[in-house]
Amino acid sequence: MLKEVRFAVGIWAFTPCADRFEPAGYKESKTVPDQIRVAGKVKDLDGIILQYPTGLNERNIDEIRDALKESGLTVAQVDANLFSRRFAKGSFTSPDEKIRKEAKEIAKNVVKMAKEMGSKQAGLWLGQDGYDYPFQVNYKEMWDREINGYRQVAEYARDNAPDVKICIEYKLKEPRNFMTTATVGKTVAICQEIGLPNIGATIDFGHCLMGQESPAESVMFLDRYKRLFGVHINDNYGYWDDDLFFGSLNTIKALEFIYCLGKVNYKGWIGLDIFPYREDVVEACNISIQNFKDMAEVLDRLPEKNLIKAQSRQDAIEAYRAVRKILFR
Amino acid sequence: MLKEVRFAVGIWAFTPCADRFEPAGYKESKTVPDQIRVAGKVKDLDGIILQYPTGLNERNIDEIRDALKESGLTVAQVDANLFSRRFAKGSFTSPDEKIRKEAKEIAKNVVKMAKEMGSKQAGLWLGQDGYDYPFQVNYKEMWDREINGYRQVAEYARDNAPDVKICIEYKLKEPRNFMTTATVGKTVAICQEIGLPNIGATIDFGHCLMGQESPAESVMFLDRYKRLFGVHINDNYGYWDDDLFFGSLNTIKALEFIYCLGKVNYKGWIGLDIFPYREDVVEACNISIQNFKDMAEVLDRLPEKNLIKAQSRQDAIEAYRAVRKILFR
Amino acid sequence: MLKEVRFAVGIWAFTPCADRFEPAGYKESKTVPDQIRVAGKVKDLDGIILQYPTGLNERNIDEIRDALKESGLTVAQVDANLFSRRFAKGSFTSPDEKIRKEAKEIAKNVVKMAKEMGSKQAGLWLGQDGYDYPFQVNYKEMWDREINGYRQVAEYARDNAPDVKICIEYKLKEPRNFMTTATVGKTVAICQEIGLPNIGATIDFGHCLMGQESPAESVMFLDRYKRLFGVHINDNYGYWDDDLFFGSLNTIKALEFIYCLGKVNYKGWIGLDIFPYREDVVEACNISIQNFKDMAEVLDRLPEKNLIKAQSRQDAIEAYRAVRKILFR
Amino acid sequence: MLKEVRFAVGIWAFTPCADRFEPAGYKESKTVPDQIRVAGKVKDLDGIILQYPTGLNERNIDEIRDALKESGLTVAQVDANLFSRRFAKGSFTSPDEKIRKEAKEIAKNVVKMAKEMGSKQAGLWLGQDGYDYPFQVNYKEMWDREINGYRQVAEYARDNAPDVKICIEYKLKEPRNFMTTATVGKTVAICQEIGLPNIGATIDFGHCLMGQESPAESVMFLDRYKRLFGVHINDNYGYWDDDLFFGSLNTIKALEFIYCLGKVNYKGWIGLDIFPYREDVVEACNISIQNFKDMAEVLDRLPEKNLIKAQSRQDAIEAYRAVRKILFR
Repeated sequence: MLKEVRFAVGIWAFTPCADRFEPAGYKESKTVPDQIRVAGKVKDLDGIILQYPTGLNERNIDEIRDALKESGLTVAQVDANLFSRRFAKGSFTSPDEKIRKEAKEIAKNVVKMAKEMGSKQAGLWLGQDGYDYPFQVNYKEMWDREINGYRQVAEYARDNAPDVKICIEYKLKEPRNFMTTATVGKTVAICQEIGLPNIGATIDFGHCLMGQESPAESVMFLDRYKRLFGVHINDNYGYWDDDLFFGSLNTIKALEFIYCLGKVNYKGWIGLDIFPYREDVVEACNISIQNFKDMAEVLDRLPEKNLIKAQSRQDAIEAYRAVRKILFR
Repeated sequence: MLKEVRFAVGIWAFTPCADRFEPAGYKESKTVPDQIRVAGKVKDLDGIILQYPTGLNERNIDEIRDALKESGLTVAQVDANLFSRRFAKGSFTSPDEKIRKEAKEIAKNVVKMAKEMGSKQAGLWLGQDGYDYPFQVNYKEMWDREINGYRQVAEYARDNAPDVKICIEYKLKEPRNFMTTATVGKTVAICQEIGLPNIGATIDFGHCLMGQESPAESVMFLDRYKRLFGVHINDNYGYWDDDLFFGSLNTIKALEFIYCLGKVNYKGWIGLDIFPYREDVVEACNISIQNFKDMAEVLDRLPEKNLIKAQSRQDAIEAYRAVRKILFR
Repeated sequence: MLKEVRFAVGIWAFTPCADRFEPAGYKESKTVPDQIRVAGKVKDLDGIILQYPTGLNERNIDEIRDALKESGLTVAQVDANLFSRRFAKGSFTSPDEKIRKEAKEIAKNVVKMAKEMGSKQAGLWLGQDGYDYPFQVNYKEMWDREINGYRQVAEYARDNAPDVKICIEYKLKEPRNFMTTATVGKTVAICQEIGLPNIGATIDFGHCLMGQESPAESVMFLDRYKRLFGVHINDNYGYWDDDLFFGSLNTIKALEFIYCLGKVNYKGWIGLDIFPYREDVVEACNISIQNFKDMAEVLDRLPEKNLIKAQSRQDAIEAYRAVRKILFR
Repeated sequence: MLKEVRFAVGIWAFTPCADRFEPAGYKESKTVPDQIRVAGKVKDLDGIILQYPTGLNERNIDEIRDALKESGLTVAQVDANLFSRRFAKGSFTSPDEKIRKEAKEIAKNVVKMAKEMGSKQAGLWLGQDGYDYPFQVNYKEMWDREINGYRQVAEYARDNAPDVKICIEYKLKEPRNFMTTATVGKTVAICQEIGLPNIGATIDFGHCLMGQESPAESVMFLDRYKRLFGVHINDNYGYWDDDLFFGSLNTIKALEFIYCLGKVNYKGWIGLDIFPYREDVVEACNISIQNFKDMAEVLDRLPEKNLIKAQSRQDAIEAYRAVRKILFR
C-alpha cells in the first residue's frame, strides 16, 4: 500500500518560524539555498516545495539548482507566494485591479517555473483572499474574481504547460478570518464550474481537521471528482492550523487517511507542511516521515476483510477491532 | 428590502423539546394538530413546515387541513422525517438495501405530499446519513448512495411535481458526528453533479455558524449557482446547533445575512428553525420574527452608498461605520 | 502502573440512548434492574454508577440489590439526577426556592444512599445549572446559590457519612449552553472556597477535550489540590460531549491521561461514561475497558527514563520517540 | 454607569502587525516613541500599556517620557515581555533555570518600572508558559514553577511597591497550544493558593470568547474573589484570539460585559488589546472606544427593572426584550 509515494517538504519549515509575538522567529534566519541544504539532511526525503518569487525566481534559479543538486532533492511543487504584505487584502480578489493583475501574472509564472524545474505541480494557496469582518466585502465580486483568476491560470497551464497541474490548497482561515477557498466542497464546486481537468486540490491533513472535515472522507470526495492532486501532512488540535509534526496527535485519523490514500491508489508526493516553532526542523521532518511510513507499513497488516465486513454494516466497534490489531506494540 | 418574504415555523418547535438527558422533553406533549393550533397564535406567521410521515401523512391529511385552516396557516414546506430509529444508520446511505429503498420512497412521497398540500418545497435533511467513528464507513459507497438518492428524488419531482423544489438542508453534524451533506460547498458540488435545476439548498443561519461559514457569504455562494431555495433562521454560539431564538446573539452577522438575502432578491419563506427547550414557544417565535423584521427595517436606513464604497476598498472600519448608523437606539 | 483500578459503568449507557431527534431512543427500553443485568455481561466490570432517585431510590432498593447481586456488580457511585424536567432551569441555582430546597434534599439523600449501598462516592453533575442566553441570569446570585448548595451537601456528608466523598463532575456545556461548574479551574476554586476536604472532582476525559483542557494536565492540576476523586472515560472530537467508546479517537492523549493517573497513584474507579446511540452497549463497554487495559499495559513498557529526560528539556520530539516505542504492533 | 473608566491601548497595536506568513508585518515599522506619538492621535485615549524591557526600559525611560508628554498619555500598565525567542519554552516555567531566574527578574523590574512610571498595574501575560504536544512537559513541575514565579513577584510588589497590582492575563492558547494560566477558574485557583491580595486578573473580552467563557460571567466570577484588576477589549469569532476592533461582532455579549462591569462598579482602565493587521490603527482604536462608549451610554437607558424581573425567573426572552429596547436606531 502506498508503495509509490515520495516525500517532500515545504521550504517554510526551514525559516525562523515567526509568529506575531516573535516576528524575528524562534530560530536563526537562513538563505533559501541554505534552507535547501538543511532539508538535504532529512532522511527519506526526495523533494522540496519552493515558493515563487520569494524563494525561487528567474534571478536565482541557478543558485537554487546548485543547492538542490547538493541536497539530492528535486522540486516537488512550486507554490505562488501571494500572501506577502503587497497582497494583504487579497491576490486574485484584491480590491486593486493592478494587484489582481500582478497576482495572476505571478501565478502563471509559477506554472512556467514548475515546468522549468521539472515539477508537475503548481500550488495556489491564496492565503490573503477572503475577509475578516462582516460587511467587509462584496461576496459576489469576490467570487467572480477568485474563480476568474483560477480559470486564467488553468487555461494558461493547459496551453503552455500541459504536464503541470494546478493544485488549489483549500483552508478555512488564517491569515484571513475567512478564506475564500475554504473547504473540500467549495474546491470541488469551483473546479466543476471551471470545467478543466488540470485544476484540482491539494488536501492538507490539518486543514481538514481545522475545518471539521474527516481527512479520509475528503480524500474520497476529491477522488470522486478526479480532483485529488496533492497531499500535505502535519497534525493539529482541530481548531487551528498548528502544523505540528505528523502523527503527533490524531493517530486513528492519520491511519484512516493513509488507508484511503491507498484505496484511491494515490501515487504523488506526500508533502510535509509543518511549522516547527520550537523544535529541531530536521528531527520534526524525520519523525513525520517515519510516522507516515510506519503507519503505512502496519496498515499492510490490517485484517482488511474484517474491516470491509464491519463497514458493510457500519459497525464501528468491529471496524475498530480490525484497526486495534495493528495498534500497540 | 425583503418586502415579499413570509414567515413559517418548523413544527418541531412545538414538541416537548427533548434532549438526551430528559427524553420526555421539557414541556407537555401535544398532537400534531394541536401543535399547529399553538403555532396559529404566533404573530405575523403565515406558514408551517410539516414532517412526513410522522406529522403529516396519507391518513391524517384531513385532520391536518382542518388544523391549518383553523390556524390560518399554509404549508410552507414538507420535510422528510428520515431520522427516526429505523434510519439510525442512514436513510439513502443505510447499509440495509431495504431501508435505502424505503427512504427513497418516503422522500418521493414528500414531494407528492408537498404538491398535494400546495407547497412548492420538499425538504431533505438527512440527519442520519453520515458516520460517527473513523473507519466506520466506506466513503465511496456512502457518496454513491447519497447522490443516487438525491438524484432519484429530483428526477421524480421533475416528472411528477415540476413546481416542487427539492431543498437539501446541509448541516455539519448532529445527530451523526459527521453528516454527509455537511457544507455549502458540498451541497453545490452535489447539485452540479446531479445537474437538475430543481434541486438546491435550504440555508440554515445556525448551521452556517456551526460550520464556521459566514451565513451571508453562503447566501451569495448558493445564489451564484442558482441553488438558494429556502432559508432557516435561529442563532447559536458557533459550536453546535443550539437553535436559539433568532437575533439573540449574532446581531451583526444576522444583519449581514438579511442584507444579502435582499441583495439576491430572495422572495421565499423565512422558516423558523428553533428548539426552545426552556422557553415559551410562541414567545420564542414572536421575538424571532420581530427581530428579523426590525433588522430588515433598519437595514432600509443603512447608508448603502457608504457601505459599497467601503467594500470597494475592503475597508472594514468604514463598512462598520455605515452599519453603526442603524445600531443602538 | 494502575494495577489497583477497577472499572464501573454509568447506568445511562443501558438506556435507549435518546437524542432530540429520536426521543424514544435508538434501542429498546429496559427497567433499571434489567439494565443492571445487561451490565453484568460486560467483561472485567466490577461496578456500576446509579442515579438517585430516578434509578435507585428508597422504594426499589431491594430490587436493585437483587439485580446487583445477580450481576456481580457493586455500586461504584450514586449520582444525583438533578437534570429532569423539574430542574429545567437549575437545581441548586433554580430561580424557584422550593426547587432549590428540593435539589439539596435530593443531593443529601444521594450521600445517604451511597453510604447505604456501600459506595464511597456521591456524584454531583449539575447539568441544568447554568444559562443559555446572555442577560438571562444574575451571575452573582447564581454563584452564591451554587456554592451554597455544594457546601451544604459537603457539610452534610462530613457530619453523616464521613467515608463518602462528594464528586463534582465539571462540564463546559450541555444540556445548558453554559454550565456553572464548567472547568477544572472553577472546580478547584470552588472547592478551595468551601474549604472542606471531602469535596472534589470527577474528571471526565471527554469533558476535558470538549473544554480544550489537556486531560492529563487536568489530572495533575486536580492532584495538586487533592481534589481528584473520580475518573470518567470516553472519547470525542473536541467540540461536544460525543461520549464515544474510550480509545476510539485520541490515542496519544488517552495514553498520556493514563500515564498521569499512574503518576498520581490513582486507585479509584474508572467509570465508563459512554452513550452508544447506535452501537451494542456491551461491546462498547468491552472495547472501552480493553482499550484502557491495553494502554495501561503497554505503558508499562514505556522507556520512562527517555521520557523524563525529554521532558526535562521540553523536547516534544524525543518525548514522542519514547511513546512511539509502544505504538503500532 | 461606568462613568469613571478611562481608555488605554496596548502599544503592540502600533507595530507592523506581523503574522507567520508576513513576519515583516502588514505596515511600516516605527520606533516605540513614534508608536506612542501615533497613539496620541486616538480620540478619548488617556493611557498606554507599555512592555518592559522591549519597549520601555531603564535606558530609554526619558525618551519614553518625552513621547508620553507629547501625546498627552499616561502609563496605564507596564507589561512584562516574557515571550520573545529567549523564552520560547517558557519564562517562569522554562526548563532552563537561568531563564527562569531571568524571567522573574524581569517581572520584578516590571513592578519597579510601573511604580516609577506612576502606574498601578504590572501585567503578566506569560504567553510562552505552557506546552504544544502531549507528553512534552512534566505538569507537576510546570505548575510548581509557575505559581512559585507568580508568588515571588507578588511578594516583591507587596514589599516594594504596595500600590502596584499584579495583573495576570489568562489565555487559553497562542503562542503555545496550551497555556498554563488558561482560564478564569485557574486564575482564581492560583490566586487563592498564593493568598495575597495584590495578585489578580486582567480579563480580556476575546480571551473569554476563545475559551468559551461568557465574558460577563467571568467578570462576576473574578469580582466574587476580589480578583478583577484589569480589563482588555477587542472581539473575535470564538475560536482564536483574532483581536478585532471592539464591537465588531458580538454586540449582545459586549453589552452584557459592559453591563456587568457596571454592576461590580469597575473603575479601572479599559485597555484596547487589538491587532489591526490590515486596518488603520488609529481608526481601529477610535471605533473601538466609540463602540464601548456608545454601548455604555445606551445601557443607561436599559429598562433595568424589567431585566431584573426577567432574570429572577431566568426568562431569556423577557430579558432580551429589555435589551432590545436599546438596540437598533
